[in-house]
Amino acid sequence: MGRNLVYPKVDKNTVHRKSDRASYDLQTIHSIINSTPVLHVSFNSGDPEDPFPTILPMIGTMASFEYPSADLNEPLDCYLHGYVSSGIMKRARSTSGNALPITIAATRVDGIVLSLTPNSHSYNYRSAVLFGYGSLVEDSEEKMWAMQTVTNSVVPSRWDNARSPPDGSEMASTTILKVKIVNGSGKIRTGGPGDEKKDMEREDVVGRVWTGVLPIWETVGEPVRGGAGLVDQVPEHIRIFQNNMSETNEDYAKTAAKAKSPAGKGY
Amino acid sequence: MGRNLVYPKVDKNTVHRKSDRASYDLQTIHSIINSTPVLHVSFNSGDPEDPFPTILPMIGTMASFEYPSADLNEPLDCYLHGYVSSGIMKRARSTSGNALPITIAATRVDGIVLSLTPNSHSYNYRSAVLFGYGSLVEDSEEKMWAMQTVTNSVVPSRWDNARSPPDGSEMASTTILKVKIVNGSGKIRTGGPGDEKKDMEREDVVGRVWTGVLPIWETVGEPVRGGAGLVDQVPEHIRIFQNNMSETNEDYAKTAAKAKSPAGKGY
Repeated sequence: MGRNLVYPKVDKNTVHRKSDRASYDLQTIHSIINSTPVLHVSFNSGDPEDPFPTILPMIGTMASFEYPSADLNEPLDCYLHGYVSSGIMKRARSTSGNALPITIAATRVDGIVLSLTPNSHSYNYRSAVLFGYGSLVEDSEEKMWAMQTVTNSVVPSRWDNARSPPDGSEMASTTILKVKIVNGSGKIRTGGPGDEKKDMEREDVVGRVWTGVLPIWETVGEPVRGGAGLVDQVPEHIRIFQNNMSETNEDYAKTAAKAKSPAGKGY
Repeated sequence: MGRNLVYPKVDKNTVHRKSDRASYDLQTIHSIINSTPVLHVSFNSGDPEDPFPTILPMIGTMASFEYPSADLNEPLDCYLHGYVSSGIMKRARSTSGNALPITIAATRVDGIVLSLTPNSHSYNYRSAVLFGYGSLVEDSEEKMWAMQTVTNSVVPSRWDNARSPPDGSEMASTTILKVKIVNGSGKIRTGGPGDEKKDMEREDVVGRVWTGVLPIWETVGEPVRGGAGLVDQVPEHIRIFQNNMSETNEDYAKTAAKAKSPAGKGY
């Protein structure tokens, strides 16, 4: 669509440290969220005696029910999947206006960057943080759509290749939290080590210390049959996912390791 | 030492959902934290107008400066590595009593669990959450020790195999946040799908839907030379790390995929 939407840069989401690695671009941030298997979701309990934010690992995806064909570079909601009696769902239900302030984080590690000195060691990584207000999805059509969207975000086409749709008791026991995003930011590092002049000039250092990147990626291994299904052959939707995922991850990590190093110090 | 210390089970850290997967055991929780490359650290800004917890990806490790030989099953502090001017360090410095309430989360995904119905799909995973009070490490001996400990937690023996110790300006620009842990919990899932009786009895379902686990693990790839170092051959400490890490991760994910399925519903 030729647009390049960005989240507004305000104090809360502005990356100060290594700001050249920052991104406020919706497409970049939404892609990181959607390609991370588990999100960390943080919120406050509301109890003034409890100073600690809660953090939960949750499964979720960016999508739009109003505009299902929306691209990743368009405004999207974050749909989080959970159990009806879980703490976060109770908290969202009891929050005034049914809008719980929520922070969502996703980080993927793509490599370990080994420079001359430990101080400039780093990771190649992709990280994203979103801020928004969570409320429970009450509309049954939207809820069903969100369950399908979240399922297919884990393994594409899985919904149609399993026993769906869920029945009444499954619908009742599942809760979908929809987070309306108000802001966010991303940070990405690629490339080799950023060594410092003072070390590069020392022959004893450059002659002794190995520098470079150890690429790291998530491999999806050979499917292990289990459970009650009687199907022996691994179906196509799983084979495609397995191969695509492993290849995409490996390619990204290796390309990131070989990318031009960032200017300045490494970490 | 024959002890099996656990974090106290209070309202804040008690796992209600799928409580049979919960662990309060120090060794289990500390192991998850120490084997996760990047931690998510959450805290509140202190601004009453800002309802969103902040989440930062950070590098850190559990260790004890007072008892450096302490095992993972003993009380440990979480040492987090950061830059002196970063927001969290400023926040810790300005917090009364120099003790900022912090929540630390680590989650590792070990597999995708595909059951007969999307509703009981799940991940095999290991997750840990810790609650504690963060303060800046002021003692220079403890700070140097923590920098070394954090570096070696990423790649064992790297400290001695790089240009160390850091010089004065590197010491000044680095801040270590020490989090005194007051509580925590862990949650682990292994095994195949937990299918439900109502689906297992349907021939059309068990005859059509593939069920099982896709094991997932982090692979450490062939080191890519870069940066200013002139050493050509990949040194032993890196080879050992590369092989150990990939093997350990792969073994864990495959073993988890083949483990006995948990009782009851799957996810």
